[in-house]
Amino acid sequence: MTVTSPDTTAVGGRPVVPSRGALRPLGQDEVRITGGFWGARQDVNATATLPHARSWMDRLGWTGNFTATGPTVSVADRRGREFTDSEVYKLLEAMSWEVGRVPVGGAGNQTTVALETQIAELTKAIAAAQAPDGYLHTAFGRPGQPDRYSDMQWGHELYCTGHLLQAAVARARTGGGHEDPLLAVARRAADHVCDTFGPDATPGICGHPEIELGLVELARVTGEQRYLDQAALFVERRGHRTLPPHHFGWSYFSDDEPVRQSTVLHGHAVRALYLAAGAVDVAVETGDDELLRKVAAQFDRTLARRTYLTGGMGSRHTDEAFGDDFVLPADRAYSETCAGVAAIMLAWRLLLATGDGRYDEIVERILYNVVATAIGDDGRSFFYAHTLHQRTRTAALADDEEQLGFGGGPRAPWFEVSCCLPNAARLLAGLSCYLVTADDTGLRLHQYADSEISTCLTDGREVGLQVRTDYPDNGTVTVRVTKTDDRPWSITLRVPQWAAGAELVTTYGRRHVPAGDIVVYRTFAVGEEIRLELPMRPRFTAPDPRIDATRGCIAVERGPLVYCAEAVGEGADLDTLRVDGTVPPVDTEAGVAVRARFDARGRESWPYGPPEPDTPNASPTTSLDLVPYHRWARRGPSTMRVWLPTT
Amino acid sequence: MTVTSPDTTAVGGRPVVPSRGALRPLGQDEVRITGGFWGARQDVNATATLPHARSWMDRLGWTGNFTATGPTVSVADRRGREFTDSEVYKLLEAMSWEVGRVPVGGAGNQTTVALETQIAELTKAIAAAQAPDGYLHTAFGRPGQPDRYSDMQWGHELYCTGHLLQAAVARARTGGGHEDPLLAVARRAADHVCDTFGPDATPGICGHPEIELGLVELARVTGEQRYLDQAALFVERRGHRTLPPHHFGWSYFSDDEPVRQSTVLHGHAVRALYLAAGAVDVAVETGDDELLRKVAAQFDRTLARRTYLTGGMGSRHTDEAFGDDFVLPADRAYSETCAGVAAIMLAWRLLLATGDGRYDEIVERILYNVVATAIGDDGRSFFYAHTLHQRTRTAALADDEEQLGFGGGPRAPWFEVSCCLPNAARLLAGLSCYLVTADDTGLRLHQYADSEISTCLTDGREVGLQVRTDYPDNGTVTVRVTKTDDRPWSITLRVPQWAAGAELVTTYGRRHVPAGDIVVYRTFAVGEEIRLELPMRPRFTAPDPRIDATRGCIAVERGPLVYCAEAVGEGADLDTLRVDGTVPPVDTEAGVAVRARFDARGRESWPYGPPEPDTPNASPTTSLDLVPYHRWARRGPSTMRVWLPTT
Repeated sequence: MTVTSPDTTAVGGRPVVPSRGALRPLGQDEVRITGGFWGARQDVNATATLPHARSWMDRLGWTGNFTATGPTVSVADRRGREFTDSEVYKLLEAMSWEVGRVPVGGAGNQTTVALETQIAELTKAIAAAQAPDGYLHTAFGRPGQPDRYSDMQWGHELYCTGHLLQAAVARARTGGGHEDPLLAVARRAADHVCDTFGPDATPGICGHPEIELGLVELARVTGEQRYLDQAALFVERRGHRTLPPHHFGWSYFSDDEPVRQSTVLHGHAVRALYLAAGAVDVAVETGDDELLRKVAAQFDRTLARRTYLTGGMGSRHTDEAFGDDFVLPADRAYSETCAGVAAIMLAWRLLLATGDGRYDEIVERILYNVVATAIGDDGRSFFYAHTLHQRTRTAALADDEEQLGFGGGPRAPWFEVSCCLPNAARLLAGLSCYLVTADDTGLRLHQYADSEISTCLTDGREVGLQVRTDYPDNGTVTVRVTKTDDRPWSITLRVPQWAAGAELVTTYGRRHVPAGDIVVYRTFAVGEEIRLELPMRPRFTAPDPRIDATRGCIAVERGPLVYCAEAVGEGADLDTLRVDGTVPPVDTEAGVAVRARFDARGRESWPYGPPEPDTPNASPTTSLDLVPYHRWARRGPSTMRVWLPTT
Repeated sequence: MTVTSPDTTAVGGRPVVPSRGALRPLGQDEVRITGGFWGARQDVNATATLPHARSWMDRLGWTGNFTATGPTVSVADRRGREFTDSEVYKLLEAMSWEVGRVPVGGAGNQTTVALETQIAELTKAIAAAQAPDGYLHTAFGRPGQPDRYSDMQWGHELYCTGHLLQAAVARARTGGGHEDPLLAVARRAADHVCDTFGPDATPGICGHPEIELGLVELARVTGEQRYLDQAALFVERRGHRTLPPHHFGWSYFSDDEPVRQSTVLHGHAVRALYLAAGAVDVAVETGDDELLRKVAAQFDRTLARRTYLTGGMGSRHTDEAFGDDFVLPADRAYSETCAGVAAIMLAWRLLLATGDGRYDEIVERILYNVVATAIGDDGRSFFYAHTLHQRTRTAALADDEEQLGFGGGPRAPWFEVSCCLPNAARLLAGLSCYLVTADDTGLRLHQYADSEISTCLTDGREVGLQVRTDYPDNGTVTVRVTKTDDRPWSITLRVPQWAAGAELVTTYGRRHVPAGDIVVYRTFAVGEEIRLELPMRPRFTAPDPRIDATRGCIAVERGPLVYCAEAVGEGADLDTLRVDGTVPPVDTEAGVAVRARFDARGRESWPYGPPEPDTPNASPTTSLDLVPYHRWARRGPSTMRVWLPTT
């Protein structure tokens, strides 16, 4: 592991800035997405999702809580669940990355100016709600409210503080700098947390990890060792069953076994992933390689046994939890959007620490099949959970109606518990930072999108790249050198595992390249192009036979996209669909098609009986169009399935 | 439909006494189980489960609530959740059926005398807790408690009253008669309910159906039309979304659509089944054949699409609900014991009303595979939920430890929510009543168990039978006539659907009999025997292909028993089990065996990839012993699966 970037000063728009690691993350001032699949989504995020979220949070009183529950106002005015403060903080974080994405003075200037005004106004309200000793939560501690930290299991106080810290860090890194007023609020809050829960104080932990991430990042921005120590302490304190018993079990709260002793992520998926990401941050900053290896091994096993084809995590609705190994039902797959965001946070930290390109693959999978799925074309409708099999068509909600529970398709405008929405928004606003990193010899491209890259290498040399691609529709990625000098450096490209037959075209010719990292190291010239051609043929994918829920089924993928069968019309369903697994899927004008038939229905009586030949009523197969999973339920109520039973 | 048994007087030990119907139920004074599979379980129920339940309810304060929350005692002393009153009532009901099973003066007399004492003592406490206007619930209405009926959605007040009424009816029918003090309490409570929720009063419904069942049965015992009318009103009032919105949806509370408009049981399984059973009671008593047909059709569709192989119902842990059609995951199958009991209640009512022998089959299936599974050999350990696939071995709880949540195997001594335990106990104590009915021409045997039957036919003639069998170990059922006269009558035997090749042996010889009801109508002689020989070969059973979760699997059944593979030892698991579906299962000394192999494990990486031949590492198959599902987890922590992947 190489120390690449000690960082005690606020720097241009990077979500995660470890002081050590194999790779150095680039900031929003170094990488800009200029169009394509993600560029369009970033624009929708800025123009639709951010104002939509702000408007709902105002309407529901979540932003107002910061002023409405001031000491002179009735506590009864406090609105929403105990974690709504965190949604406001996540929105602030998303707004901050958006400001970083389109700085004042750039294109889209007007939006940015408006965001700056909103950030200032919200920061003022939040600062006013902070107690003189630094404590900050709108649901606890005031007259008529429960005492501070009287419900560590469910109160979400440190969870909310963690998001406050992340928001303040984002603000500091996207223009606010060390003097930003939100950072001052965060420092006071963090000091209060350290005073209250430090090594010689109350040995508590929060029922929902998140404070760990916030504290480490705040330590990185401020250089304050105390915050890092407190984060490390919280990580070590977990797993000793100090929270009260609950019928979800201690695993739900990541309090059943110490982080170092776990072998796989388990319990509440978002809690487990946030904690693991925080533990990686702690491990990197403290040089705790054992902890890093343990968390990496847990994530490896989670990817091998507890992850959906889409990259989604969390099999259970009941406790929003990972299932046992290989329990990955398509029906009611929980796969919460937040777990997708959290898994990207974890994978990204592991990638930066280790440089292992496997983490790119899961980031990409989640981006295209969870994050892209979560948000409607209008940027104002959302999935919270991501089922892989929708059996009944459910009606759309009205634009002003919030979803109780997690619904099915179509997407809903808002949720009673709306963590996922600002979580996806903050990721999207800062997405350019997840495309490229710098290593000792040059740049590594992790995700492919239309983008402009301009940075300094470790030795201070200025280099620049322009990336042009229609990915993932098309597998051609053209990388053009826009800035270089007369010394050699490296451009590393990722060839995904699925891309058998990929080719690299350079000025020296065309050659086959295997899956993995392809390093082109030499002296480049400005204007020189490297072209990666990834074959985008649709392909069948089979599950590990130990995944019982999908036995006898195949899925279709094309590039990084998972596809699905969808039936939109009244009465259409996919119950009796059978796909001919011997005829490979093909590209069509409509997308991707397979050969399939619909069997006659079974009898309407006891559904178990003597084994019978598989196809008593087999009809001829016809062509069936599939759509990318991220596009399902965009045409209104539908039934859908990712895993397709074979003939 | 024939009116067979108008009943306005308390009669000997029958759980359900409709005034009309195709079949007349027999009472505990007419049918006695004398041994065998169910006789042993009834004894354990009496000697272990009833005292165990009483002891826990005393220890947890649930019985004490009736005295501890009297007007002069602090409300803070009230213990347990808002539905604990109902557990005491169900225990009282179970005790009452137990008194009916072994009357004072019979064998087991000492237990019965002790039960009478307990019943009297509990009745006295309950009567003392009743308000002067008849209202009775220990968690509402007193100073410091929430107002009566202030939380119709979750308060469970009418639910508890319904169980009080059922307990009082049981007591009246097992010796208490019309003058029993618990019946007097129930009448006052029912009058209060009618006064409060009658046609001209508050139009409320309870979040958990049950009051409907209690009111109809109380009407049957007392002849009070008002109770029946109120039950009918509650049935009609449901489904209009008058309860508040909730993220489980109105379906959870059986309040999403009127009973008459439903096409299938849905939402919370126990709620839906109790309501359906109450609706059948109302339909029968009011002559509402349309309602009867509707509920029967809903149950038919539920059996065809929403029922586990075990007869278990309810696919979801989250909201304890039926899943969509064909969503029947083996993993975490919810299949609550209470839903099994409730489904038997519904099936039994439909059987009595229609005489359709299909309902026998589901009753038998649930008895042997849910009810028998629910209770440990010691009568002091229990399953709440009935998974069909246990992937990890979970440790046993200590004898004095209650299960939070629903756990896996082994069985637990008690649950935070302990509805299932007294529910199974009340069913078991009164089980003899579910074996035999009388129709216009004679007797019908629905379930086979060692038993003595002595009753009068519709025309008043006295008849008697003795049944001897080792069912379900052995398929031979011998029915001996113990009482008859010189006129003909009928003995109807049930040949289950699985019993292809069954034979009937009478004094006239041996003949093959098809599945269905076999009527032997003639003049019998005392001592004459009819022998039914049901072939008990183990057999493979395949699921409807629309049940995605079990595709590519088969199960093994033998007679009414579902079998399972179980791995008890440390490290043993069933993840890679493959059964050879071409070699039929065989009886062995240990039970039933199939040919099976364990595949080599897959790779420990991303578990999705190009389709591969099914058996890259196929090893030779060996013999694998299976055990009856109801016996799983009796040897300590284990992994288990009912559905077996095929080679």
